[in-house]
Amino acid sequence: MKKNPSCTLTVNLGERSYPIYIGSNLLTDPAFYRPHVKGQQVLIVTNTTVEPLYLDAVKSALQDYQVESVVLPDGEQYKTLAVWQNIIDSLLENRFDRRCTVIGLGGGVVGDMAGFAAACYQRGVYFIQIPTTLLAQVDSSVGGKTGVNHPLGKNMIGAFYQPQCVIADIETLTTLDDRQLSAGLAEIIKYGLIGDLSFFEWLEQNMEGLLARDHALLAYAIERSCKDKAAVVAADEREAGNRALLNLGHTFGHAIETGVGYGEWLHGEAVGAGICMAADLSHRLGWLALADLQRVEALIKKAGLPIYPPTSIDADRMMALMSVDKKVLESKIRLVLMNKLGSSVVTDTFEPEALKGTLHEYGRAIS
Amino acid sequence: MKKNPSCTLTVNLGERSYPIYIGSNLLTDPAFYRPHVKGQQVLIVTNTTVEPLYLDAVKSALQDYQVESVVLPDGEQYKTLAVWQNIIDSLLENRFDRRCTVIGLGGGVVGDMAGFAAACYQRGVYFIQIPTTLLAQVDSSVGGKTGVNHPLGKNMIGAFYQPQCVIADIETLTTLDDRQLSAGLAEIIKYGLIGDLSFFEWLEQNMEGLLARDHALLAYAIERSCKDKAAVVAADEREAGNRALLNLGHTFGHAIETGVGYGEWLHGEAVGAGICMAADLSHRLGWLALADLQRVEALIKKAGLPIYPPTSIDADRMMALMSVDKKVLESKIRLVLMNKLGSSVVTDTFEPEALKGTLHEYGRAIS
Repeated sequence: MKKNPSCTLTVNLGERSYPIYIGSNLLTDPAFYRPHVKGQQVLIVTNTTVEPLYLDAVKSALQDYQVESVVLPDGEQYKTLAVWQNIIDSLLENRFDRRCTVIGLGGGVVGDMAGFAAACYQRGVYFIQIPTTLLAQVDSSVGGKTGVNHPLGKNMIGAFYQPQCVIADIETLTTLDDRQLSAGLAEIIKYGLIGDLSFFEWLEQNMEGLLARDHALLAYAIERSCKDKAAVVAADEREAGNRALLNLGHTFGHAIETGVGYGEWLHGEAVGAGICMAADLSHRLGWLALADLQRVEALIKKAGLPIYPPTSIDADRMMALMSVDKKVLESKIRLVLMNKLGSSVVTDTFEPEALKGTLHEYGRAIS
Repeated sequence: MKKNPSCTLTVNLGERSYPIYIGSNLLTDPAFYRPHVKGQQVLIVTNTTVEPLYLDAVKSALQDYQVESVVLPDGEQYKTLAVWQNIIDSLLENRFDRRCTVIGLGGGVVGDMAGFAAACYQRGVYFIQIPTTLLAQVDSSVGGKTGVNHPLGKNMIGAFYQPQCVIADIETLTTLDDRQLSAGLAEIIKYGLIGDLSFFEWLEQNMEGLLARDHALLAYAIERSCKDKAAVVAADEREAGNRALLNLGHTFGHAIETGVGYGEWLHGEAVGAGICMAADLSHRLGWLALADLQRVEALIKKAGLPIYPPTSIDADRMMALMSVDKKVLESKIRLVLMNKLGSSVVTDTFEPEALKGTLHEYGRAIS
């Protein structure tokens, strides 16, 4: 067993800076926890899928502490305030004090809920993330976004809250199902399209190896994704400006997720289709060449992701869903679009007819 | 009508600094809102008591904006996550975007819930406080504490979140009932006892005038209280150290509030009795002279406040309730005690027997 991570990244946020450890067999090693657990009490939040796989392993690394756990149901449809309250109840029932640590052990849903509980319990306690899906390792690891969904919109209730550290153990990806692996690749492709053309090209070359779960390739993709995201977040922690670039594909994607019902499509799947829609709109506006649109769609497809939204959502419904999304500022739809391959911009300046064209092309019908 | 506030204080918290406007007839004046409302959408959160008195007045000052309102039931027993969700629902149903402003118009409960909604909606929107009780004007105005109660403890779910500004309109105190006025005086007396002896002495001299609602005396007491609190908060925004001094009387007080059931005692009433218990314990430890203990009790009594907890809570129950309070660090009870009149310290170093003595004296029985 390797004792040292293959890599440690630092997310630079002043006094809220923290390390991301990326490597194999990290979550069983007490050395990664010790500097970051301040008090004596630790609550591990996980879900029914991850619990049998990794809960005991994490507990074994925390034998010096009082460790309790909460097991949530698995799935985006359970990312609700009502389910979240179970975490708060457990903290109180175990009389956890304000020096306690909450660990999120699982995918993005678990991490978002555990982080939001840590943010709110006694107005803020310590938080450690152990993302066990590819999507969570490349997305939730950086940025401090935590929260839950509301029936009227995704992630509408939440907080910006930074962890003490992130432990991204690549071994956990061996137990991930194929759909989840592809979902993570959607976010990875996104980083290439936002501002890292050579990474996009690397992904075109190495997609087969990533799908075959080559550890070295996965480690590289995670590290580069986290670095790309960390650079954006460090410059704009609370999303006042360019951080919104990270929402490439997400306004379309959130509309899909809300429209089909949380949990039906994986977040990464919806983002995959959303990226294609953003690319299509960018092409209609004359910003992205047809050949580049085709490269985007080809890579999304190669990653095992859907290119089109589900047929159950027509263009009108998609438009209605998009306009409640939180990226919408004062009734103008603000989107992340590609101004060329490997470069994106945040804009509300586009022809409404072009958006209608994309919705018509990708949705079922438009009035 | 005076157009200018009698006083503007600034709470210095770096980029989170904000002004407190203190004076008469402020809440109807658009000039106090304009610099602090960023977008076009404003949600006013108030309660059934305050709505008929001031909601229309505030709306009249905000005619340039889209204004919606939510009216909550009045009372600490409604400071729950379930009631709080009504605010979030309203924001979403009205399709408010992330540049919207939430205004808390009411006492501490309204302010805490509105502030926590502003903190969590889309991970943080703008917030303005219009405290309409004396307690809220001297306590909630400064410090950024927001949140809701949990059946197992007060303020267990919340966030530190600073407003854009606070508008403390002294005219609103004319409609306050006597119990609420006295509750506010408890927190005012607290500032004297934490570190401002000459203010304590001023209060001894001017209590009759304050109870008679002399506007000039009230304005002075509010200003000085906010200044005292702002100095403590500026030095320790997230309560890592000395900010805990502001909890003088609160560990006892929260135990009383939880023990009798939220809403039975006003927060300030519980703090009044809690301050007397802290003074009694300080005296038992030899830190506070008997004459000074008597001065504390006399002033609390003069302010129309209870000195003793309700007889329904015995000493054992009080001890159990205190040990779940969030000021308890890793099972040690940490209290704010007076080391002399006009000066307090945070400590977990005291004889358990002395605490038992106080609980025996003030509670019904101890085993």
